Amino acid sequence: MNKMLTVALVQETDHGSTEANLAVIEQRVAEAAARGAKLVLLQELHNSAYFCQHESVAEFDRAEAVPGPTTERLGQLAKQNGVVIVGSVFERRAAGLYHNTAVVLESDGTLAGKYRKMHIPDDPGFYEKFYFTPGDLGFTPINTSVGRLGVLVCWDQWYPEAARMMALAGADLLLYPTAIGWDPSDDTAENARQRDAWMLSHRGHAVANGLPVLSCNRTGHEPSPLGAAGIRFWGSSHILGPQGELLAEAGIDAPELLIHEIDLARSENVRRMWPFLRDRRIDAYQDLLRRYRD
Amino acid sequence: MNKMLTVALVQETDHGSTEANLAVIEQRVAEAAARGAKLVLLQELHNSAYFCQHESVAEFDRAEAVPGPTTERLGQLAKQNGVVIVGSVFERRAAGLYHNTAVVLESDGTLAGKYRKMHIPDDPGFYEKFYFTPGDLGFTPINTSVGRLGVLVCWDQWYPEAARMMALAGADLLLYPTAIGWDPSDDTAENARQRDAWMLSHRGHAVANGLPVLSCNRTGHEPSPLGAAGIRFWGSSHILGPQGELLAEAGIDAPELLIHEIDLARSENVRRMWPFLRDRRIDAYQDLLRRYRD
Repeated sequence: MNKMLTVALVQETDHGSTEANLAVIEQRVAEAAARGAKLVLLQELHNSAYFCQHESVAEFDRAEAVPGPTTERLGQLAKQNGVVIVGSVFERRAAGLYHNTAVVLESDGTLAGKYRKMHIPDDPGFYEKFYFTPGDLGFTPINTSVGRLGVLVCWDQWYPEAARMMALAGADLLLYPTAIGWDPSDDTAENARQRDAWMLSHRGHAVANGLPVLSCNRTGHEPSPLGAAGIRFWGSSHILGPQGELLAEAGIDAPELLIHEIDLARSENVRRMWPFLRDRRIDAYQDLLRRYRD
Repeated sequence: MNKMLTVALVQETDHGSTEANLAVIEQRVAEAAARGAKLVLLQELHNSAYFCQHESVAEFDRAEAVPGPTTERLGQLAKQNGVVIVGSVFERRAAGLYHNTAVVLESDGTLAGKYRKMHIPDDPGFYEKFYFTPGDLGFTPINTSVGRLGVLVCWDQWYPEAARMMALAGADLLLYPTAIGWDPSDDTAENARQRDAWMLSHRGHAVANGLPVLSCNRTGHEPSPLGAAGIRFWGSSHILGPQGELLAEAGIDAPELLIHEIDLARSENVRRMWPFLRDRRIDAYQDLLRRYRD
């Protein structure tokens, strides 16, 4: 029994404006559909530059409602091409209340659901706590015609808890729109360790949960409005199988449309062989709900 | 600020008897100490063959008390060589009540603590649920002169929850005695995926928790008492840094004394750069305590 699904990841640079970025996305999604993709994952905050390199109230002008103009346009795109699209929007929920929100558009053009990024980073060049209120929708997969999608966003990728919560809720695969890169002032060895750690984290989630994982990252250098060195986004978008195996990987420095056919039925086989869910010690995990066991 | 610690992993085959196995361990620990090691990790159930390839009441004769003969002998060995030793014992707690128990011997020869394997596997060739009652001591690191040791055992390695529980309780490093290998009837591609998944799982725990990880596995083929193909233990014992980086790795098919100097201070640096513990959504993890979210 196979359950084949062709997936596509749109790894892109910033093209300078929402209009330019969405125009490129429209081309890539059409190409992905022409090549058989039924599920397309976009990178985090794909409409613009990664504006969180500084803290500026003016940047809130970029935010929009969900549903709103971007979900409407992505919905039309999904319908035109007969694909499910996972996008990423800077959501304006109310004045002074904003989220980093993944959106899922069904192939009939409707908004299948949304996920508000739960874990929010804040470190030099990634000042997200200024912009994004931590999500309040929990970890709930979104049902679509291609499966039950465990959509998470970037910083969530470091948390095994998030992946597990999605798996326990019946996700068929895990998807991460991301925007992660190097501080150009770090040395080569540190750069390698960071990118490797990022891959290892995703691969670890695949293994622990017996699920395919898709991660779509942005690429290219974006300058810092603060005059710092900026961020060199490291691309490396990838598609993993349920044993953490690397099925496809994009390059580091260029836009790329990464397409691969995955077999969702392998998860069942892998979980029969290694039935990790059977043996979880739910009687002994209470302290996972504590900040620290001190 | 560095905090250097030389660690040694004793990857061995079964030498046919408890006496023969402990004699080899004594040689290896002396060699490790001579080369500067202050912490030595042994493989799972190092006193004997991996007897869980069948279910036989006679095998319970192998079990012993903790403390008992093996902890006494390992304690003397630890004291003679001035090292902390992490061993693995088939513990007889009472008639009909047995555990798969890791033991930690301080460098003064005392028993610093024990950990009873919490997650117990059961799949063809690994019939552990017959032998081992799931641990009831929880996930508690053990204090020693070389640090606070987050000792877990083999099947625990697949559970991010176990690693996290140890990290939240202040473990300085994670240690896994293991006994994992291939079914010789599986094909090469499946073998590679399984060994890779095992490495990825350990490496994922290192990344998620910003901790070094030591995993000591057995090597060599052991025949099946049932007439099955037996298990080819895949060795590959390894030492990881707190970004999941592979610092040292043993070969697959031969005994090896793997020694490496690690810097425990790097964990603090890594956690300052990537402060994952800061952002855990403990308000939203309640369902980790459920079997399944259905």
